[in-house]
Amino acid sequence: MSNSKSNPPRSEPVTVPPAVVNRLSLYLRELQHLINGGNETTSSSQLGRRLGFTDAQVRKDLAHFGQFGHPGIGYRCDELVGAIRSILGTDREWRVALVGVGNLGRALLGYRGFSEQGFRLAAAFDADPAKIGTRLKEIEIHDIARLSEILASKQIELGLIAVPATEAQTVSDQLVAAGVGGIVNFAPVTLTVPDEVSKVGVDLARELEQVTFSVANRLREREKGGGSGDLSDRS
Amino acid sequence: MSNSKSNPPRSEPVTVPPAVVNRLSLYLRELQHLINGGNETTSSSQLGRRLGFTDAQVRKDLAHFGQFGHPGIGYRCDELVGAIRSILGTDREWRVALVGVGNLGRALLGYRGFSEQGFRLAAAFDADPAKIGTRLKEIEIHDIARLSEILASKQIELGLIAVPATEAQTVSDQLVAAGVGGIVNFAPVTLTVPDEVSKVGVDLARELEQVTFSVANRLREREKGGGSGDLSDRS
Repeated sequence: MSNSKSNPPRSEPVTVPPAVVNRLSLYLRELQHLINGGNETTSSSQLGRRLGFTDAQVRKDLAHFGQFGHPGIGYRCDELVGAIRSILGTDREWRVALVGVGNLGRALLGYRGFSEQGFRLAAAFDADPAKIGTRLKEIEIHDIARLSEILASKQIELGLIAVPATEAQTVSDQLVAAGVGGIVNFAPVTLTVPDEVSKVGVDLARELEQVTFSVANRLREREKGGGSGDLSDRS
Repeated sequence: MSNSKSNPPRSEPVTVPPAVVNRLSLYLRELQHLINGGNETTSSSQLGRRLGFTDAQVRKDLAHFGQFGHPGIGYRCDELVGAIRSILGTDREWRVALVGVGNLGRALLGYRGFSEQGFRLAAAFDADPAKIGTRLKEIEIHDIARLSEILASKQIELGLIAVPATEAQTVSDQLVAAGVGGIVNFAPVTLTVPDEVSKVGVDLARELEQVTFSVANRLREREKGGGSGDLSDRS
């Protein structure tokens, strides 16, 4: 992981819309692909074209955080990767706990995208005695009753909730009480957390609805005989 | 599922930012919870408060699609559910195919949130002979080589890609050739699809990055001794 040599965003608190943060992740992935493909530099138009955004959008998004381009060169890929990781807070490892080792939990334990981006799944928890004490992907599954103790001993900062909807708020409260700073919730329910804890809800049907909106919209446009196309694509 | 009695958005092609579409899904879930809790009406401030948005945001989002409130009443929950489903295109069933029955694919086959929102997983595909011909959650797993034939016979319109990144573009091309109108991609790679096909990429690490951005930002604010809090929460 390279460090940014452009003006560092590191110490500046920034207030930007969540959608911009989401696009930073997309830029980061694309830059990583470019580097893997042997590219040392890129441009807002190349990045934008690969992701379906205008070059103005790319420049505007990055301008929230500083000035990253170089005249006559564009962006240096590894420098911009370092800068975005610094902005996203992923210029260091984060220790993550998973609660709920059903099908989705098992998929999350095996999801390589986490470790590639600096997330380390350091512990898993379940309430099922048949699972407690076993290992999956080298991660031991602990009794949920020991959550607080193990989170403290393993210095875990983030929690993934993959339990049924009816259990999610209880698990969230336990994670908050154990001191995690952020929660990603895969249960289809809206959680209440204190202001000082960050949360993101992942609702997989929501992704499908983005697609059906576009498809339905395209059918409507076709019926009307006009329209400019699809506005919901996002990667 | 109720039909909308307010002015129908059904036949109007609409051009709105993807973030608005995403919030429509959140409003829909919250309305469904309200109905399950016995509520017949709600307001922009109640909806907003439950989701962490301002009432102005809720009103502005809905105003893209029509006028849904009633003076002195607010929103009728089932009417607004019908209207949002119509906008999202989920006022009817969509037939969905899953490609890739690894851990994530199995989790997706068992994900109840899909059927709750009108998505019917009608077929699954894999290349592994040990899986082909078996059933999971009553869905038969077919040979990926038969994709085109089975998609046509089952009239499938949407595809979920849960194969390794290296296979995702090939699978996407096959789904497009078989005539699907939309794709949700869980592989950590950006797909190229024709303009007339909608796609959404789901990158689970991106959700974690939304959280680390907030946590890192909060730490930066604390160091500076100021700041207003968290901007990345979204449900």
